[in-house]
Amino acid sequence: MTDIAQTIDAANKEAVRRILSSEPVLIGVVRASEALPRLKAGTILHAGPPISWERMCGPMRGAVTGIAVFEGWASDLDDAERKAAAGAFTFEPNHHYDCVGPMTGMTTSSQMLMVVQNKTFGNLAYCAINEGLGKVMRFGGNDREVLDRIRWLTDVLGPALDAAIKDMGGIPLKAVIARGLTMGDEMHQRNVACSSLLLRQLAPALARTAKDNETLAKCLTFIGANDQFFLNVAMAMGKAMTDPARGIAGSSMVTAMCRNGTDFGIRVSGTGDQWFTAPVEMPKGLYFPGYSEADANPDMGDSAIVETIGLGGFAMGAAPAVVGFIGAGNASEAAVFTRAMGEICLADNPEWTIPSMDYKGVPTGIDIRLVVETGLMPTINTGVAHKKPGVGQVGAGVVKAPRGCFEQALVAFAATMGVKA
Amino acid sequence: MTDIAQTIDAANKEAVRRILSSEPVLIGVVRASEALPRLKAGTILHAGPPISWERMCGPMRGAVTGIAVFEGWASDLDDAERKAAAGAFTFEPNHHYDCVGPMTGMTTSSQMLMVVQNKTFGNLAYCAINEGLGKVMRFGGNDREVLDRIRWLTDVLGPALDAAIKDMGGIPLKAVIARGLTMGDEMHQRNVACSSLLLRQLAPALARTAKDNETLAKCLTFIGANDQFFLNVAMAMGKAMTDPARGIAGSSMVTAMCRNGTDFGIRVSGTGDQWFTAPVEMPKGLYFPGYSEADANPDMGDSAIVETIGLGGFAMGAAPAVVGFIGAGNASEAAVFTRAMGEICLADNPEWTIPSMDYKGVPTGIDIRLVVETGLMPTINTGVAHKKPGVGQVGAGVVKAPRGCFEQALVAFAATMGVKA
Repeated sequence: MTDIAQTIDAANKEAVRRILSSEPVLIGVVRASEALPRLKAGTILHAGPPISWERMCGPMRGAVTGIAVFEGWASDLDDAERKAAAGAFTFEPNHHYDCVGPMTGMTTSSQMLMVVQNKTFGNLAYCAINEGLGKVMRFGGNDREVLDRIRWLTDVLGPALDAAIKDMGGIPLKAVIARGLTMGDEMHQRNVACSSLLLRQLAPALARTAKDNETLAKCLTFIGANDQFFLNVAMAMGKAMTDPARGIAGSSMVTAMCRNGTDFGIRVSGTGDQWFTAPVEMPKGLYFPGYSEADANPDMGDSAIVETIGLGGFAMGAAPAVVGFIGAGNASEAAVFTRAMGEICLADNPEWTIPSMDYKGVPTGIDIRLVVETGLMPTINTGVAHKKPGVGQVGAGVVKAPRGCFEQALVAFAATMGVKA
Repeated sequence: MTDIAQTIDAANKEAVRRILSSEPVLIGVVRASEALPRLKAGTILHAGPPISWERMCGPMRGAVTGIAVFEGWASDLDDAERKAAAGAFTFEPNHHYDCVGPMTGMTTSSQMLMVVQNKTFGNLAYCAINEGLGKVMRFGGNDREVLDRIRWLTDVLGPALDAAIKDMGGIPLKAVIARGLTMGDEMHQRNVACSSLLLRQLAPALARTAKDNETLAKCLTFIGANDQFFLNVAMAMGKAMTDPARGIAGSSMVTAMCRNGTDFGIRVSGTGDQWFTAPVEMPKGLYFPGYSEADANPDMGDSAIVETIGLGGFAMGAAPAVVGFIGAGNASEAAVFTRAMGEICLADNPEWTIPSMDYKGVPTGIDIRLVVETGLMPTINTGVAHKKPGVGQVGAGVVKAPRGCFEQALVAFAATMGVKA
């Protein structure tokens, strides 16, 4: 092994160690303005790498106008659109504020954010509360119903969850994931087990801390009716687990993958906080009745952070039922995806295992060298938004991270090692 | 095909149709004395086919003395034992009273029983509330802690559950099972998904109907801490689904399998309510730390009713994680058990399918002819009790139904068809 290869090997070992030794704990729900003093009124955080209003896709624009009305920064959607085009709002990636958000991923100062602390390293990560399915802001929805729901999450469910989580002294998440993998979840397009397990833990504490039982019943009903409730928890967890692995000189491991509906962006440990971007691809999948690929917006959201820690498409072997939902082939072949992702990863996670694969650990720590060398692109399980603002989710599918990101990253990474491409 | 074979074929089609067209709904929780007017004070219903005190195994005796003290029919365990030996109590099988019970399966007049109604046929079936794990009466436990817990189930949780279930207008169970099969449950030794899904449905109604939030939190905690909570619901459902298939002339389908710790008993549709019994076998499995097969009581409980409707050992393919828990081999080979049980069953259930087997339905309707012909005995996933009274659960494993039951049943069945063995 050359000196350089040894250096990279040691750096990657450390990067993987930081992910695997993480102890993510859901510790509360907090208003964004309190948690993130840098986040000012008029600033809108979005999913994916940086993007301007001009280059934003339809559902992202729909969400931006909706959240501006929600925050009172615009009188209506038309006013919000005019202001956005006139530069009245500042747009920044969630990832620049310790945040992540699914699909459009709107984060603004009034919203309540779930907080995951990585107890091993002390760092915090944030994600808003999942809104449920259908016409919701993360898929570009922005009408009164959508805004009223976010208001309720902010005013009612967020504070109730915070009280319950604090009453419990926090909820350690690694064990929830370990269990969910034995129950058919991959924590991206299938979170029914983890959502149920979380509710089971939360319910007694919600009862103990409830102000009135009508509200309590409404909170329990909302969580119980949303099989994807846990997704946003898994995302904050992913961010909390990958952040400590950022900036390790010599490491070729991916620390973030995200999409804004226009560009796909990745970060690599050894190249710090630089984004490597390429155009997003179109998911291949299944559409809800009445919709087709012609209606679909390309790939979007910070949710690929779950693939970055070995879940989602990487843990497909644990979730045969998701294969049909996302139109990826025969359920009995779910393990094929996990085995393929093992080819581009640095380790298996010994704490997160897949029973039907005789307890093989989920493949963890994407090495950009292996991606470029094998040509196997990371597989991401994703929801699909309508390409027009205001419509919502139209399907779900599988999408590949674009090769361009990894090629650019490899060139930049090589340069940090003193190697010219 | 001979005339007799055609007759049997038609009768079995009808028997299977009755199982598959069943619509089991959990409709409430009721005191045994109200639900079962025939059940008098001094009568103790037990798991399995009929048995006298003299032939009862240790844990069954332990449970009998415990429940007699609980009911106030004896001053203490010694007194209960003397009275039992002196013939003071009447012993009858749960199955003779539309009931089922796991392991020792004690059912007496003061207990609260969950009620499942088969909406297609109108019949009702009953099972007590699951007590949790460890030292519990169904595994022969009988001390103060065990009796206090049953008192709480009777006085607090039972009425709370009844109010919640009635508030919801009942809980249809087929959809819960269908979902649980996609989440790694086989509903005998693994009920974590169904228990969580049930709690998720119940929680808002429990909140709406709660008298005080301290009690509510305690109820939610109890259900949430018990991964086997759903087992007793699945059992009452199994009884509700198989009962309408009893007594179809010419049907060679099994309508019940159960064990009292001494004898294994089966009923066959075409031979009505006659029991065919043979000595129970010893489960092969894994023991909790400090215990071994030397401590184990042989096979026990009415819970094999879930195998009778295609779940438990028959649905092993859905539950790779259970394979290790019961010591049955490699998790990746879970489907082997389901395929083998398919060899002795009349149909696959199109509504209860296994994703990892490309949505093959669980094998349903055991044909005694196929069992005797193939020599493949029904596989049952079971808990293992200590052979002494008062100890509790010591492990879990796989056990086979004994061949003798099926051979006797076949002879008797043949006689009903005018065929001499």
